[in-house]
Amino acid sequence: MSFTTDSTIYTFEGKLLKLSHESTETKTKMEVNVYLPKQYDSASSKSIPVLLYLSGLTCTPNNASEKAFWQPQADKYGFAVVFPDTSPRGAGIEGEDDSWDFGSGAGFYVDATTEKFKTNYRMYSYVHGELQTKLAEQFDKLDFDTISITGHSMGGYGALSGFLQNPSKYKSVSAFAPISNPSKCQWGEKNFGGYLGDDKSQWAKYDPTDLIKAYEGPSPEILIHVGKADPFYYRDHQLLPENLVEASKGTPFEGKVSVNYEEGFDHSYYFISSFTAQHAAHHAKYLGLSN
Amino acid sequence: MSFTTDSTIYTFEGKLLKLSHESTETKTKMEVNVYLPKQYDSASSKSIPVLLYLSGLTCTPNNASEKAFWQPQADKYGFAVVFPDTSPRGAGIEGEDDSWDFGSGAGFYVDATTEKFKTNYRMYSYVHGELQTKLAEQFDKLDFDTISITGHSMGGYGALSGFLQNPSKYKSVSAFAPISNPSKCQWGEKNFGGYLGDDKSQWAKYDPTDLIKAYEGPSPEILIHVGKADPFYYRDHQLLPENLVEASKGTPFEGKVSVNYEEGFDHSYYFISSFTAQHAAHHAKYLGLSN
Repeated sequence: MSFTTDSTIYTFEGKLLKLSHESTETKTKMEVNVYLPKQYDSASSKSIPVLLYLSGLTCTPNNASEKAFWQPQADKYGFAVVFPDTSPRGAGIEGEDDSWDFGSGAGFYVDATTEKFKTNYRMYSYVHGELQTKLAEQFDKLDFDTISITGHSMGGYGALSGFLQNPSKYKSVSAFAPISNPSKCQWGEKNFGGYLGDDKSQWAKYDPTDLIKAYEGPSPEILIHVGKADPFYYRDHQLLPENLVEASKGTPFEGKVSVNYEEGFDHSYYFISSFTAQHAAHHAKYLGLSN
Repeated sequence: MSFTTDSTIYTFEGKLLKLSHESTETKTKMEVNVYLPKQYDSASSKSIPVLLYLSGLTCTPNNASEKAFWQPQADKYGFAVVFPDTSPRGAGIEGEDDSWDFGSGAGFYVDATTEKFKTNYRMYSYVHGELQTKLAEQFDKLDFDTISITGHSMGGYGALSGFLQNPSKYKSVSAFAPISNPSKCQWGEKNFGGYLGDDKSQWAKYDPTDLIKAYEGPSPEILIHVGKADPFYYRDHQLLPENLVEASKGTPFEGKVSVNYEEGFDHSYYFISSFTAQHAAHHAKYLGLSN
């Protein structure tokens, strides 16, 4: 058993498990929350599809578990939700806790190559590989071959990036206020620079706006919501969803990147929770679930 | 205009307002959140009923706004939700910040009579009087004559107590894990003692289990949920809902205090949010709303 169950929380009609385990990728103890929907108890082996939700900067698995309100949606359609952490914690790297938008809480879903971070900051291999493999071993009713991916902000970038790097792995992808072209914004420059170094060809391996141009594989609709009153969008230009749409032209995704710009909404969980139901319906369709 | 709008947050199909004002009752600046449902913008004068949600120990107006998930329910039926704070803040009373379950964050919805607290700790008159009067003046589409009340833990007690002390004021009442007989539990003894002194006849004026025995007025069903895995219920005996049910015998509420004991659920917002929909349906019925 890889995971220790630190708590089992009854919520809505299912159960939220707070799990922890020793990760071989990050070489740290990692926490992860898993919501098992009401269908889980009576389910047969490998029959519950999975939605992987990647959180944004500073978040732990708990923020979205408490505030994003996936639980009733998961019960409605019958999928589990996996909420990984956003970085290793306590790796002991000098300076990793100094900044809210780099290091702890900001793993940026890459496998770091810089000397300082390459041993522990392997969140790409962790969330798309080790975590899923180990959860599938321990929770054999979960079907990790029928999985979709979503996320918020840094996690929205992580979802888009992970989907585009792994054709056919994820049935569908969506994102809330994603950092869509990290190579071209301050958050991305800081994190890609810190974890991957100065060679921008290495950044392109993770940047959705670069990846989409070369993508070959299934091309489900990509559902994105962005708040028009989100200061990280309109003021700081950290999100740049327009660049992703532009890059999709001439690719299998042309006309399939649906960015919904929502009047008045900000970057918070008040925004995310407002559109969770729409994203759940989107993924349910591709996961073969209906209500 | 009594209230300053500190922020307007678009969430679900309505808007959450974070307001603050100088209270004449508490003689401090008080914060309050108000969710205006999607029906508000096009509503006519005094046409939107109100649900008053009283929070538990340590909470500010934000906890329930983020985690209890009233917003979609308010949109479904067309009521507003008012989230008051749980005590004065910054009154400058010696020791008021020393304890998590007394003083700041724990006003216990009474008008204090002890010398130390009587000037500021007037949460009974504040939530049932001043706050509603001033909100009604500033938000004239809200109908404070068509109002129901609910709350969690200390706020569940506050809702029951406020309902029973004001026959015909509230159309209906419900509670999540309420402190149902505060005179008989440690939380109640600490707070009633601190705010009201040692004369237990003064405590009975606020204790739902005492109040229900002498109540005369309309007697709608009282809806209560309690988690059977809530340590404040089964271990610490702070909630005592059985005492309220027992006291209701021979009163207009006999057979109408519906306590639902929920297997596995705890005391957290994971519990509250799981049953918000049932409580919303309960209140909507008495508020004359339907979906």
